[in-house]
This record gives sequence, C-alpha cells and structure tokens, in this order.
Amino acid sequence: MAQQERAVRTRRAVLEAAAAVFAEHGYSAATVSDILQAAGVTKGALYFHFDSKEALARGVLQAQVAYAGPPQELKVQEWVDAGLLLAHRLPRDPVVRAGAVLSSDPQGREHYGSAWPAWIELSAQTLAEAKERGEILSHVVPRQTAELIVSSFHGVQLFSQLECGLADVERRISVLYDHVIPAITVPAVLARLDLAPDRGARLYAQAVSVPPPALVPTTG
Amino acid sequence: MAQQERAVRTRRAVLEAAAAVFAEHGYSAATVSDILQAAGVTKGALYFHFDSKEALARGVLQAQVAYAGPPQELKVQEWVDAGLLLAHRLPRDPVVRAGAVLSSDPQGREHYGSAWPAWIELSAQTLAEAKERGEILSHVVPRQTAELIVSSFHGVQLFSQLECGLADVERRISVLYDHVIPAITVPAVLARLDLAPDRGARLYAQAVSVPPPALVPTTG
Repeated sequence: MAQQERAVRTRRAVLEAAAAVFAEHGYSAATVSDILQAAGVTKGALYFHFDSKEALARGVLQAQVAYAGPPQELKVQEWVDAGLLLAHRLPRDPVVRAGAVLSSDPQGREHYGSAWPAWIELSAQTLAEAKERGEILSHVVPRQTAELIVSSFHGVQLFSQLECGLADVERRISVLYDHVIPAITVPAVLARLDLAPDRGARLYAQAVSVPPPALVPTTG
Repeated sequence: MAQQERAVRTRRAVLEAAAAVFAEHGYSAATVSDILQAAGVTKGALYFHFDSKEALARGVLQAQVAYAGPPQELKVQEWVDAGLLLAHRLPRDPVVRAGAVLSSDPQGREHYGSAWPAWIELSAQTLAEAKERGEILSHVVPRQTAELIVSSFHGVQLFSQLECGLADVERRISVLYDHVIPAITVPAVLARLDLAPDRGARLYAQAVSVPPPALVPTTG
C-alpha cells in the first residue's frame, strides 16, 4: 500500500516535471535528461513509468483529459463546466498547460497524438445527451459544435497566454460560452445556465476533497 | 512608372518568399539567406525594401491585414465578410498563412509584433458602427466580441491546418459565425446575413478585377 502510494507520487512528479519542460521548451527541444533533472527521481524510476519521451508526452495528454466535472441537472451545464474547469486549471496546473502546448505542436503530435480528439469526443457525447433531453436546438450537430468549441477554446487560451500569461483565461472562456450558448440551447435552458467566470473555481473547490481521477494512474 | 511597377513586383516577390519560409520553418529558424534564395532577387533589392528579418516579418503581417472586404448594407455583414474572406485566402495566399504563424509565435512576436491588434481594432470598429445602427444587441461590448472572434478564428484555422492542411477552413469559419451571430445580432438582421462557407470565394472573385490594397506597397 505504501509502495503503491509512492509509485503514484513518483508518476505524478515525473508527469509534472515533463509538463513543465514541454511547456517551456516545446516537445522537440525537450530532453528526457531535462525531465529527469526537474523531477528529482532516478532514471530507473522514470523509465518504470514512461519508457520514452513520446510516452511522457502521451501521459501528459491523458492526464489533462481525465477530469471533466461532476454531474449536473442539465447536460448543457456539464458541457460548459468541462470548459470552465479546464480554464481554471490551465494557469494552475502545469500538466494541463503542457497539454495545450503539446496538442498544437505540428511536429510533435505526429509522434504522440493530441488531447483534442478525446476532448471532442467527450464534448460531442455530452451535447448528444443534451439534445436527446431537448436542452439544445434541433438543428445543432453535436460533433460540429464540439469541434468548434475545442478549436475556439484553444485559440482563446493561446491569446490569453500570449497577452498576459493566462491571468484572464477564465473570463475569456466565460465570454466564449456567452457567445456560443444562445446559438445552441433552447430559451428555457439558457436562463438556467451558470456561465460565470468563477464557476470553474467553485467546481474545483468542491472537487478537492475527493482527488480528481487525473491524479490517479491508470496503469503501473 | 515602369520602375515603380518593378519595385512593387520585387517587394511582393520578397514578401511571398519570406511568407513561405516563415510558414515552413517558423520565425526563429528562418534566415534572410533562405528568403533571398526563395525570392530570386538580389541582396540589394531585398534590403532596399526590408532592412532586417524583423522588417520582413512586419511586412508580412501588415500585408495580411490590409484587405477586409467591400462595403455592405449591413455593418454586421462587413464584420462577417472580413473573416470569411480571410478564411478563403488562408489556404491560397502564403502571406496570409504566414501571418497566422507569425502572430502566434511566442518568441518572435516580441520582435515584430502580431497581426492580432490590427484585426481586433478593425473588428471592434465595425461592431461599434453596427451597434450605432441598431444591428447588434445592446449588451454586446464590441471590443470583447472582437477579441473573442480573433482568438477563436486563430484556434479554428490552426485546427483545420493541423487536421487537413486548411482544406476545410472556410466551412469551419462559417460554423464559427453560425455559432456566434445569434448571440450578438438583433433577430431582424440575423435573417438577412449571408454566413455561407463560399461567401469568401464570391467576395474574392468580385475583388480580383481591382487589386486589393494588400498588393500595393505603402512605402518605398
């Protein structure tokens, strides 16, 4: 049990170090030696969890997608919550920040993929359920809207990153939903949604008593 | 006169070569020698128009912003047209494509700036005029919506670039406006707007008889 807990901590330390190195230098320029040094673990410990730089990048991307938010009465609210929570975590969690950098790296993503397909899948599924429940308008195509929100989200967070180091990313993502929600939801649902910039922070505070799945390794 | 025409052509050839090199290698890795070779002009001719790599990057960014579309009855339509035209030009014009790459380069933009402020300014001005005419809803803040559309546009075009080399960028940008327009325009205007994916191509075809200002140098 103590051994398993140590393994979880080591894996997380390695992932956070990898994330910090990837976010600062980009995938191509990052080296496993840099990551080893930042993590402060032995080479054996690192390779026990991740056998290559590619595996480290994949680990960072998987950890980013793992936590989307608690169930809500409205499926559209869950859809918005996934984005507002991600916006809250971006400036605070190096793993989430590195996920955004890695996903948009044209050279790197040929090797390790991107977090976007998983986000699009999650987003499209939630919208499809919202549509079945009559929360969104009949002309909405869940996958189309999901691809739009994931790509727009990326542009908005990049803008915030370049302008002010993500200091206003929660406000900007809230503005994104303010602009998109009226085009997709039925009026009765529209009035009941919480799109406030601080919603991500509130959801996160609720979640900290139970560690989100992102902190728990799925293997080894 | 003939000399001036030659200068215009040389300047454009240099800008297009610079754009191609920046788009392929990024700003940091690009060299003036690469650009000289791609342009097929003399060193003297290049330095007559642009005295450094930074000046070349600024030239590319300025040329991208210069052409926004012809006047329309509705200001909101002009606002949409700027984006649909840009989407049409992205896969076809290396200068426009390089503008997107340069604007989002975290290291490079410290040296030469970004096209985003000029696009945001143009977008906010057009929205402010649309608001004065009663075309958009009273709660809309032009600058906020302008920053949202420019940053979302960037994310959508990057997604299209990475997924399929910009083959579907016009459709995706049309989808972006489909999702944003209902949140900002009054219902009577909404029904009269053309947000179709091929609108950019139609506007561009109308414009080719008169060369857009982007093809004319503003200095020397």
